[in-house]
Amino acid sequence: LAELGFDAEAAEKGGFEHFMLKEIHEQPDSLRNAIRGRLDFNLGSSVLSGMGTSARDLAEIQRVVLLGCGTSLHAGLVGEYAFEDLADIHAEVQQAAEFRYRNPLISRSDLVVAISQSGETADTLAAVREANQKGAFVMGLCNVVGSTIARETGRGVYLHAGPEISVASTKAFTCQVAVLLMMALKLGRGRRFSRDEGMRLAQEIDAIPQLVERTIEQNDRIAALAERYAASEHAFFIGRGYLFPVALEGALKLKEISYIHAEGYHAAELKHGPIALLEEGTPIIALANDIPGKDKTLGNVEECRARGARILGVVTEGDKEAAEFMDDVIEVPACHPLVSTIPSAVALQLFAYHVARIRACEIDQPRNLAKSVTVE
Amino acid sequence: LAELGFDAEAAEKGGFEHFMLKEIHEQPDSLRNAIRGRLDFNLGSSVLSGMGTSARDLAEIQRVVLLGCGTSLHAGLVGEYAFEDLADIHAEVQQAAEFRYRNPLISRSDLVVAISQSGETADTLAAVREANQKGAFVMGLCNVVGSTIARETGRGVYLHAGPEISVASTKAFTCQVAVLLMMALKLGRGRRFSRDEGMRLAQEIDAIPQLVERTIEQNDRIAALAERYAASEHAFFIGRGYLFPVALEGALKLKEISYIHAEGYHAAELKHGPIALLEEGTPIIALANDIPGKDKTLGNVEECRARGARILGVVTEGDKEAAEFMDDVIEVPACHPLVSTIPSAVALQLFAYHVARIRACEIDQPRNLAKSVTVE
Repeated sequence: LAELGFDAEAAEKGGFEHFMLKEIHEQPDSLRNAIRGRLDFNLGSSVLSGMGTSARDLAEIQRVVLLGCGTSLHAGLVGEYAFEDLADIHAEVQQAAEFRYRNPLISRSDLVVAISQSGETADTLAAVREANQKGAFVMGLCNVVGSTIARETGRGVYLHAGPEISVASTKAFTCQVAVLLMMALKLGRGRRFSRDEGMRLAQEIDAIPQLVERTIEQNDRIAALAERYAASEHAFFIGRGYLFPVALEGALKLKEISYIHAEGYHAAELKHGPIALLEEGTPIIALANDIPGKDKTLGNVEECRARGARILGVVTEGDKEAAEFMDDVIEVPACHPLVSTIPSAVALQLFAYHVARIRACEIDQPRNLAKSVTVE
Repeated sequence: LAELGFDAEAAEKGGFEHFMLKEIHEQPDSLRNAIRGRLDFNLGSSVLSGMGTSARDLAEIQRVVLLGCGTSLHAGLVGEYAFEDLADIHAEVQQAAEFRYRNPLISRSDLVVAISQSGETADTLAAVREANQKGAFVMGLCNVVGSTIARETGRGVYLHAGPEISVASTKAFTCQVAVLLMMALKLGRGRRFSRDEGMRLAQEIDAIPQLVERTIEQNDRIAALAERYAASEHAFFIGRGYLFPVALEGALKLKEISYIHAEGYHAAELKHGPIALLEEGTPIIALANDIPGKDKTLGNVEECRARGARILGVVTEGDKEAAEFMDDVIEVPACHPLVSTIPSAVALQLFAYHVARIRACEIDQPRNLAKSVTVE
């Protein structure tokens, strides 16, 4: 019976050693499912019927509050940038537990987006109930169809990412970001974001699955360079702007499954404290894609190198200048700055996976962690 | 000559082994200077003439944006809670470098508060210039009189904390928080914060120097218990609500001067990742003062203990229930929840100091760090 169970599990893993690696590889398909039928290339906008509000209702929104925990919180941070930069609407991310206990300032013109893969995260669910009390527009961004948060928000957008078994979230994160970009595009098109810009961004969003495919093709290279970092007990992930949340998510991924004490930092904050921790060989993982802020991040990389840190850079394909600053590089395809968060996150998922594998960790079931935090 | 220099420095340290310890001990006086003459006990408000705007101007403010880097950013986070909870005004903290490069959404009804001890922090100064361009109300919160940020903002409030020599900021942080509480009180009194509530809070703010004195009296106890944590290479600081920023600041202090990889976390986020890192004896420093959220934090402490972590709790004087959850405790006096951030931060300053002293670190001049980050 035990053997039968084992075989069944192996079959479910579809030839991959772990669910996490399988789910990383599923991302092009998951993203296709998350995006399919949701872009309007002619209007340069998105069609998200689950948002369930008319253009006139959406025009009332004066502020967006994104709620989540853990990885969902990091997706929300990307969303914050997207809503502010595409739609000129004030956006803010709040840790769901903090929101629910704070008597939050929420009004009827606020859009509250509750982000939870499982749709059962206890703190996020309680936050949804609180936001409902305040008469805000409340939407869910869930993967599990019919989950409690999806039901209680009444409206929202499903990820369609397919079941996620690995405790460390991968495809849910990238699909959350993709859907948030489409939500921001829709709100932006109700404001000053032009049809031309919208058409261009819709094309870029549509191309996300291929960008992720090309990133995953580097699996073997990433596995090889992970060898150089697997013996460390500390690591810092740095980024600016849209890539700051990716730094946080990259650090969380490594922390969850490899038990390395990885910490994500805004690159500009390095000099205000953590640079004191750098020693010969301390790993710095720098998000240095060719988007605004790159030069400043490269400046910070230079400072870290001067202190002997070993730098793994995530850079844009063919960016020889950025690569010069690094000890090792992972290249991701050139794309829209907001979209670049997705292939960059995938690169760091693969990095975390291979480091953990080399360290012989329990990848799919890290110690002390549950897939869905349904108690407080 | 070298010897003369040494003697002169020793004299400046006033009998303390390091500037940092001297400055920690100066806090009751610094806070008295920061608070003196700035409270109106009769109106239950504060008098901050440097804010330079009439009550009618202040009534126009619809949003507060707090800008800073490092420790000043953490003070800003406490300010965010204060403005929202005392004045019902949306408030948000932004890392100054992020703000300056982001084409931020700022309007004429926004109050932008730039926080910088030196008044010369490059990123914060550039952010001030950007905010000035947008026609916002811009104020400085600086310690150094006549510094560039103080001059360019035109208005603001000085800390009067006295010169801070130690690279790790101590008295500037607590004075920043005290002044932010007074600013929030003033804005709150222009809204729905009642005279009675205002009178009570003014009394509480006035008592801060004594609260800090009583915390500092525990110096020898804290030195003794620091011995039990000084050998660790990792530590997590956890808190909720008003104490979340204190957890971040406590971790930064320890990181800066002891080179321990200390990380601050929202207590509710522990279960979404970092709990995987806990091993037998991993230090958890829990902010568990008797303020709203305590019970939830104690629940998180319980989970950490079950994984073998060693818990140092900061608890309210006489709170035997909370102390039961901890391996070691530092007590701070009972006070208003927002005010409690200050003695709690002082307790963690002393803890960081003694851990670093035991580890024989260069306390006043940590490697790689500058007192004032005047380049990007």
